[in-house]
Amino acid sequence: MSNAQTHQNRYKADLREIRFLLFEQFRLDELLGSAPYDAWGRDEVGMVVDEAYKFACDVFGPLNAVGDRVGCRIEGGQVKTPPGFKEAWDKLYEAGWKSVSVSPTYDGQGGPFTLYTVVEEFLCGANAALNMYPGLTYGAAEVIEHFGTPRQRDLFLKRMYGGQWSGTMCLTEPQAGSDVGSSRTSAVKQKDGKYLIRGTKIFISGGDQDLTENVVHLVLARVEGAPPGTKGLSLFVVPKIRVNDDGSLGGPNDVVVGNIEHKMGINGSSTCVLNFGESDACLGELVGTVEHQGMPQMFRMMNGARISVGLQGVSVASSAYLNALEYAKDRKQGSSILQWKDATAPRVPVIDHPDVRRMLLDMKSRVEGIRALIIKLARHQDAVAVYQGKDDRAAAYNQGQVDLLVPLVKAYSSDQAFRVCETAIQTFGGAGYTKDYPVEQYCRDAKVFSIYEGTNHIQAMDLVGRKLGQGGGVNLQAFLNDVAEFVKANEKHPVLAASIKELREAHEAVAGTAMRLLSWFQLGKMPMVPLAANRFLEMMSELAIGWLLLDGAVIALKAMEGLPAGDAGAKDRAFYEGKKHAALYFAANVLPHAKFSAEILGREDSSALDIPADAFATV
Amino acid sequence: MSNAQTHQNRYKADLREIRFLLFEQFRLDELLGSAPYDAWGRDEVGMVVDEAYKFACDVFGPLNAVGDRVGCRIEGGQVKTPPGFKEAWDKLYEAGWKSVSVSPTYDGQGGPFTLYTVVEEFLCGANAALNMYPGLTYGAAEVIEHFGTPRQRDLFLKRMYGGQWSGTMCLTEPQAGSDVGSSRTSAVKQKDGKYLIRGTKIFISGGDQDLTENVVHLVLARVEGAPPGTKGLSLFVVPKIRVNDDGSLGGPNDVVVGNIEHKMGINGSSTCVLNFGESDACLGELVGTVEHQGMPQMFRMMNGARISVGLQGVSVASSAYLNALEYAKDRKQGSSILQWKDATAPRVPVIDHPDVRRMLLDMKSRVEGIRALIIKLARHQDAVAVYQGKDDRAAAYNQGQVDLLVPLVKAYSSDQAFRVCETAIQTFGGAGYTKDYPVEQYCRDAKVFSIYEGTNHIQAMDLVGRKLGQGGGVNLQAFLNDVAEFVKANEKHPVLAASIKELREAHEAVAGTAMRLLSWFQLGKMPMVPLAANRFLEMMSELAIGWLLLDGAVIALKAMEGLPAGDAGAKDRAFYEGKKHAALYFAANVLPHAKFSAEILGREDSSALDIPADAFATV
Repeated sequence: MSNAQTHQNRYKADLREIRFLLFEQFRLDELLGSAPYDAWGRDEVGMVVDEAYKFACDVFGPLNAVGDRVGCRIEGGQVKTPPGFKEAWDKLYEAGWKSVSVSPTYDGQGGPFTLYTVVEEFLCGANAALNMYPGLTYGAAEVIEHFGTPRQRDLFLKRMYGGQWSGTMCLTEPQAGSDVGSSRTSAVKQKDGKYLIRGTKIFISGGDQDLTENVVHLVLARVEGAPPGTKGLSLFVVPKIRVNDDGSLGGPNDVVVGNIEHKMGINGSSTCVLNFGESDACLGELVGTVEHQGMPQMFRMMNGARISVGLQGVSVASSAYLNALEYAKDRKQGSSILQWKDATAPRVPVIDHPDVRRMLLDMKSRVEGIRALIIKLARHQDAVAVYQGKDDRAAAYNQGQVDLLVPLVKAYSSDQAFRVCETAIQTFGGAGYTKDYPVEQYCRDAKVFSIYEGTNHIQAMDLVGRKLGQGGGVNLQAFLNDVAEFVKANEKHPVLAASIKELREAHEAVAGTAMRLLSWFQLGKMPMVPLAANRFLEMMSELAIGWLLLDGAVIALKAMEGLPAGDAGAKDRAFYEGKKHAALYFAANVLPHAKFSAEILGREDSSALDIPADAFATV
Repeated sequence: MSNAQTHQNRYKADLREIRFLLFEQFRLDELLGSAPYDAWGRDEVGMVVDEAYKFACDVFGPLNAVGDRVGCRIEGGQVKTPPGFKEAWDKLYEAGWKSVSVSPTYDGQGGPFTLYTVVEEFLCGANAALNMYPGLTYGAAEVIEHFGTPRQRDLFLKRMYGGQWSGTMCLTEPQAGSDVGSSRTSAVKQKDGKYLIRGTKIFISGGDQDLTENVVHLVLARVEGAPPGTKGLSLFVVPKIRVNDDGSLGGPNDVVVGNIEHKMGINGSSTCVLNFGESDACLGELVGTVEHQGMPQMFRMMNGARISVGLQGVSVASSAYLNALEYAKDRKQGSSILQWKDATAPRVPVIDHPDVRRMLLDMKSRVEGIRALIIKLARHQDAVAVYQGKDDRAAAYNQGQVDLLVPLVKAYSSDQAFRVCETAIQTFGGAGYTKDYPVEQYCRDAKVFSIYEGTNHIQAMDLVGRKLGQGGGVNLQAFLNDVAEFVKANEKHPVLAASIKELREAHEAVAGTAMRLLSWFQLGKMPMVPLAANRFLEMMSELAIGWLLLDGAVIALKAMEGLPAGDAGAKDRAFYEGKKHAALYFAANVLPHAKFSAEILGREDSSALDIPADAFATV
């Protein structure tokens, strides 16, 4: 590939679709104009959408391939990021795209979280690896905002939200991956109230870089004498360069980059081994003032990070789809199936071939369905902000839906992102396997989304082990009620009735299977739960997505009625037709899986538990 | 990763499983000892299996990672393969592993094709990219063996089967990928009977290399005045270096490497753009003596190549599974689910966790099922060789099953290989995403298997458009009868009855859907066929695999009865337990999909055909 191609933006998003979700389907307008979003209206939101997309394409997009090809390296104990990353970081913070939803107290614009997710989708999709540095910085700052002392907030927040310093989250250790409770990093309290930190953390994204003058690590560690497991963990602020009380930089802290990983993808993001306190001179301070609060504090960041991973998934998948669509419209190959016997029939664009259309519509429905789910989650979060202190019931309902949907968004979006990328490659054919097109990189980048920030099985266990029963099952019940209401309102829909019937059956399957899983806890069939958890998460995600796609189709069909005839309404008509067909396709081809999965889980097959460990292979 | 790790063999195969398939399930012995396999018995076959595996691990395996990292490059118009490839090539041909099933006429060992597939699995699995050079050479030689003139056979075969010269297949052109009939490469007959070849071929695997003194290209081209489409194509032998009548090398032919592709994987395999006749001095000779026979000739090679791609899939998937299994037994993380509330409970190997067991058993059942399908196909091919001229009915039945199963083996194995690699990465967690372990490379290598040698949709259309109706449907009927007989014989099996019931339902679903597809051809619903083809291929593959896994389980359960008690029988008992659980798992979790897919296809959803092209997106 030529240098010019390596530096070309390949990112694409469909802004019409974004606007449909924000304003037609999820009516974000209803939350705008009142506190805390007094300063925001539809125009302001729309302007940010347009400009952020332009920024993503102009600044982040052209660095995606080069970041992948060049990757990160260590030079003199410091990580060097790919060429152009530093300039892009500076432009990002100059333009203010990371502070759209940051509080004005910290120089942010105080916008809705929903808008933040849209901006994030653009930035992730244009350059998933590059956007990890600001993404994790944002998450680390949020933890300090919510749990830090006033002094910590003063010292760190403007500098972190503003891009002067970056942030990381340091959980994983060589012996403690999914099993965070096994962390051995230790913290010993000093006379001045600071802590000496000692231990090794691995897989630390952005653990070092050359973008900022300082890196603020949030480190999980165990204070001497603390209980074992997750309950004994505390969270510490451990800057790479020590910070004086006036915010100026002191000497280097004892944090050493041991190594960086060589990975399948996201090569532009440095994944570091960090050694804290090798020379017994690593000082950290407790986040807040109370020890052993590390896990709840970290979970605040994890929740945001999990939504971000869902955004990474949909952003990459969406661009993979749109690139495949462009190729399918351009590339001519073969004749129409209706003329397959005539060797002289004209060659047609591959989008004319039924299997290519099937792949495209499959990708479209998944991408748009997942995005709808994320926007729904984000809107619930904004509703919490609006209703808090005004309408407790509404706030609780919305918070409950956020909690319930986070594992779905993280796991389903990331798993599907990889599959959509696979389909996109297949749509391209051989060309998709080459580095001349972006889809093979998307596919490699996407694989990690199913792994980090809690593997997708951990998400599934969070769903079935915690979220289903949360508040006595009230959140699940509210979700199921919402779906049931939609079914009831639309079961005689002139165009969608058959699809709504599928939705009803999927609803029954999910409700029934949820009951079955809860009964396993009670009947002492505990090991069956993790065996079924991933499948259940998939069922529930597809129910949610089927619902939201059908809801979108109802809205689209209604909107079509009001369109002017002929050319004036042609563009909108095409768009709404797309919404309709995506819903029809998903309802006929994907939604039935919930019912099938319920049948499979109903057999309670335990072969995977029963097989002896030495029976897997004779090697 | 250290240099030592990059040069370490990571390939693994389960030889006990191979022996089970060869001798216990598919009773290859019954075909040995009679012509053309007179010289072969169980011991000879077993020895080749052991030694070929050792060779694959010792010689091919250590070059897999380095081939990926270093890749191929062009130097002075010549492709340079990764370090070590030339030595490995020489050792391969010295050891004779590529001539196991080559006729003694050409210095081969005349062994069964089934054994060849086992050897190929080892070589592909140890180094998929490296093995493409000898694999394509073998295929090209086979075409010359079957269609070439006696002079061509004399000139080329010993040199190609013996590794002195390599071979390629040159079909694809920039405007003619899946649509081979659009090929523009031209052939103009000269007075001496040779042809001037002119055109550009792309995606030519092994199109150039530094392993052999000559490369023999088989080039599809159109003779002046030939009809359009595939029917006007002829096949030519076009050597890189001209060959004198005595077999000595002449001057260079006019074949120029224009470029090599940069790909997602199989980086050790050179993927070339070849320009033939840029200076109007490229001479080729017709394969055989009759023009316009290019497609049937190429199809002979394609058939073999498609089986090879199926082998690539299962080989890589199998090693991914076995590497994940090893990691799951070694890696300790978390406590047993039965002690999840106790932070001090001992850490356990991750194979103790239900979801890890589920992933492992899922991979095991798919890998072993696909391998069984390939061995079945290969055995049918050997049976054709044995019965030809002795028992026409048996020969025809076996040839029919080969024809029917080729698209299943190519498409299902390759699609599943990518999925199994995905699951293997997930089993490793973060470690699987790094280049410290081989699974991420396996995953990248595997993606192309679904694309080349005819995309998997082309395989699906070959199945539903040609193979289902072949001979009035006799091959499909024979296949379905074989399954039905197995069901009948085992429907009251004491352990497997419930699984056999699943098999019966899958059988009904496949038979019914086949009828439905055939009716679409007749009812003028032609565009529905390609829309359903991939799903049907999956249904039929899973029926076949479910059957073969259950057949294996019946055999395993019977064999277990005869085992000595205690330690003496422990290893075999564990192995047979594995066969049993793989079948139970597949029957309960995968086999029902055939029934579900039949239900989905029964709706005849046409949304992908109906959606207007401009409704896919507003970009």
